[in-house]
Amino acid sequence: MAAKREETIGLVDTAKEMIATAQKHLVQPWPTAGDIGAEARGGMVSGDGIYVTDSEGRRLIDGPAGMWCVNAGHRRKELADVLHEQAMALSYNSPWYTMNQPSVTLSQRLADYAPGDLDHVFYTTGGSSAVETALRFMQFANNVKGRPDKKMIISRQGGYHGSTYLSASLNGRPRDHDWMDSASEQVIKLSCPNPFRRPEGMSEQVFCDFLVAEFRTVIEKTGKERIGAFIAEPVMASGGVIIPPQGYLPRMRALCADNDILFIADEVVTAFGRLGHVFASQDVFGITPDMITFAKGVTSGYFPLGGVMISSRLFEDLRRSNHSDAMFAHGLTYSSHPIGCAVALKNLDILEDGLLDHARAISGYFQASLKTLEDLPLVGEVRGLGLMACIECVADRISNNPLTLDLTVGKRIDGHCQDLGLLVRPLINMCVMSPPLTITPSQIDEMVSILRTSIERTQDELVREGLWNGNSLSGSSI
Amino acid sequence: MAAKREETIGLVDTAKEMIATAQKHLVQPWPTAGDIGAEARGGMVSGDGIYVTDSEGRRLIDGPAGMWCVNAGHRRKELADVLHEQAMALSYNSPWYTMNQPSVTLSQRLADYAPGDLDHVFYTTGGSSAVETALRFMQFANNVKGRPDKKMIISRQGGYHGSTYLSASLNGRPRDHDWMDSASEQVIKLSCPNPFRRPEGMSEQVFCDFLVAEFRTVIEKTGKERIGAFIAEPVMASGGVIIPPQGYLPRMRALCADNDILFIADEVVTAFGRLGHVFASQDVFGITPDMITFAKGVTSGYFPLGGVMISSRLFEDLRRSNHSDAMFAHGLTYSSHPIGCAVALKNLDILEDGLLDHARAISGYFQASLKTLEDLPLVGEVRGLGLMACIECVADRISNNPLTLDLTVGKRIDGHCQDLGLLVRPLINMCVMSPPLTITPSQIDEMVSILRTSIERTQDELVREGLWNGNSLSGSSI
Repeated sequence: MAAKREETIGLVDTAKEMIATAQKHLVQPWPTAGDIGAEARGGMVSGDGIYVTDSEGRRLIDGPAGMWCVNAGHRRKELADVLHEQAMALSYNSPWYTMNQPSVTLSQRLADYAPGDLDHVFYTTGGSSAVETALRFMQFANNVKGRPDKKMIISRQGGYHGSTYLSASLNGRPRDHDWMDSASEQVIKLSCPNPFRRPEGMSEQVFCDFLVAEFRTVIEKTGKERIGAFIAEPVMASGGVIIPPQGYLPRMRALCADNDILFIADEVVTAFGRLGHVFASQDVFGITPDMITFAKGVTSGYFPLGGVMISSRLFEDLRRSNHSDAMFAHGLTYSSHPIGCAVALKNLDILEDGLLDHARAISGYFQASLKTLEDLPLVGEVRGLGLMACIECVADRISNNPLTLDLTVGKRIDGHCQDLGLLVRPLINMCVMSPPLTITPSQIDEMVSILRTSIERTQDELVREGLWNGNSLSGSSI
Repeated sequence: MAAKREETIGLVDTAKEMIATAQKHLVQPWPTAGDIGAEARGGMVSGDGIYVTDSEGRRLIDGPAGMWCVNAGHRRKELADVLHEQAMALSYNSPWYTMNQPSVTLSQRLADYAPGDLDHVFYTTGGSSAVETALRFMQFANNVKGRPDKKMIISRQGGYHGSTYLSASLNGRPRDHDWMDSASEQVIKLSCPNPFRRPEGMSEQVFCDFLVAEFRTVIEKTGKERIGAFIAEPVMASGGVIIPPQGYLPRMRALCADNDILFIADEVVTAFGRLGHVFASQDVFGITPDMITFAKGVTSGYFPLGGVMISSRLFEDLRRSNHSDAMFAHGLTYSSHPIGCAVALKNLDILEDGLLDHARAISGYFQASLKTLEDLPLVGEVRGLGLMACIECVADRISNNPLTLDLTVGKRIDGHCQDLGLLVRPLINMCVMSPPLTITPSQIDEMVSILRTSIERTQDELVREGLWNGNSLSGSSI
């Protein structure tokens, strides 16, 4: 089961040089003050299907599909070809005063998939700018409609929506805000709809009632005339693959409709096949939002593209207003990028040409296989939907300093997995799995086997180092 | 001089269909409430060198190089090839826990070009996210340093810095904020350093003294302990190619240094050859900022990539702090994208392989040729630097409703130019020219000739419609 390793001297030298140069010149996301401007991460040099190869020649399963985005898999010649073709046809045009065919065609195809009357698209370069677009449009629309105080945004603990000032203000995970500024005066956060961490003794149905009642109370207390939008990932992704209780999303959606609050479904992770459908809001959860933000899977990560599907009704309202000259002063240089939209079109072809079917067909085996890991004492819960899953460890139950131990556990599991040929993305105490949708049953077996061994090795270390007595944790109460 | 037009029935039908589909499904930047969700723009289908061809078969000079970005020109096979090659090698890796060789190599090369100790790079997907990164880093650094009140940002009237909530708050052009929300409580705007619109009778030197004194007064009044950063485009781009008075930038830079205020040079437009150098701050204006934001020309628009060059000293300060675990909770899915960085590397090769030399050599002829248009009565000033220039019309001097007439004039000139084979970007009353850097003397002649005829036609229309008596405007006082 050991990863194939070609440790030629040349490779190691190159890897060392890459690290030394990165430490001097490259800054990557989420550094700490202690190592900012002086750190490096593991070098990756190539990809093929669900695998990537690192700078030391190790071949690894890409467990998180990059950042939940390489849905069609690595080294897709059709996508590389379309990058080349569109670059040779029209590599760029300004969306301020011109348009291109790929963006127009893609808009029509996305509108066909989007629920209800969400048949307009505004393109951005990723999830953060998609969320910014949705929020700035809400602000603009309410200014035009003469209700400038209706701007508060409701998000949730555990959610993640981006890394620009306003979009990041919506985030509700540990460490999101410790040292960062945010527009907290514009945001109200509801409880995380995580059934696994619900209060002891509470049924899932009662938990759902509590969550909906909490939202209703916030609306009553704040005043619906002051709330512009509610934003939610249908399944919280980087918050730990949180699948809300049955009925939660339709009930929250209804509350929004009743109070003229825009429901923004942030489908940056859940769209484009991750849950077996192009968009999940309607096809998986039975709701029609007012806006859907998307990114990542739309190009399988080959090109930075994001966007917002917007209800045509919202535009009709504005066109009927008394302020026809009011300018929605918003747009990005790379909005509607011809190459990005061409890549997205080809990616959609791939999804339609069997990959969506495959994702739906394989998800049962994927979830069942991972679920077998629940017999490990360190594993509290394995949960998931479609081709996204989370193995939540419960080391916090054996420590007075849960975050520190959780971080250690995540890092240890990750290290063992990499030794054995699997890249995981440790989210503190959680291992998130969202592989390329092309994954096969035998590749799932390989993945789960590596995870089991890695968690077992971590358990052994914890016992050996006196951090844990080895007794079962997963059965204990929270 | 008429544009080559191939009006086959097929082309026109396709163009009509494209418009109808766009009206139903595509939303582009800066729509108005009156036409949002129901409009279309001119379709572009191909590009080659400095030319683009529209959906009706017309070949047009791309006067603004898209949005100041197609620096190496359209249809660059080297760039298309590298898109393909890198997509087949490694199409994506997560910058959260891995890195790739193109981003590391690019960082080193950019650090070699950047002035002073600006030898670290954080990559984003464009200018807005680059500015957000610079500002969020300033906020983070001041939190870690225990001075959480030092966060105000100083920008300028006429400036443009992006289209996310915080970055857009810095913008200071007409219409930027009329209907949009902004973080105005965090921003102070200084006067636009536009010598052409300076107070009557004031010398440029006195005007410069006034601008510097204004900044000094703002610092004194606000308190340097409350100001985090000053941000400035070395040459304001979409504000109308505003070249500040001699000595302005070094003096503003010195004021920042004296008051521990970070100087952020927003080089999204001016970098990567537009002014003949990779970065303009030091090589053109003799200043070393604390951070430089860049985007656009770094990939010649072939891929959404931006970034911030950051002074290593700023990181050293943080590493020495007492908060080594403080997390700079910031990063984008597409930070350090391997394909984007590979394209940027090849684009840098092209710049080094003669294109920077060519841009420097041709800029004199470019500016002198455009300057000949100043004899037209409607033209108030032609100004520019390197390969960016602005023809400012002065229709505002003949109207009680200057903005409305200015908009008309810009639109009319644009229409005539398109008929004759030139795409311009009308910025209200200004025609901005920033062609691909590959432009030749005869292509410059073609461009200027079309501009002259188009402005003459617009003048004739204004007289014919009784909006103007035809007397010279450019000599009149402001």
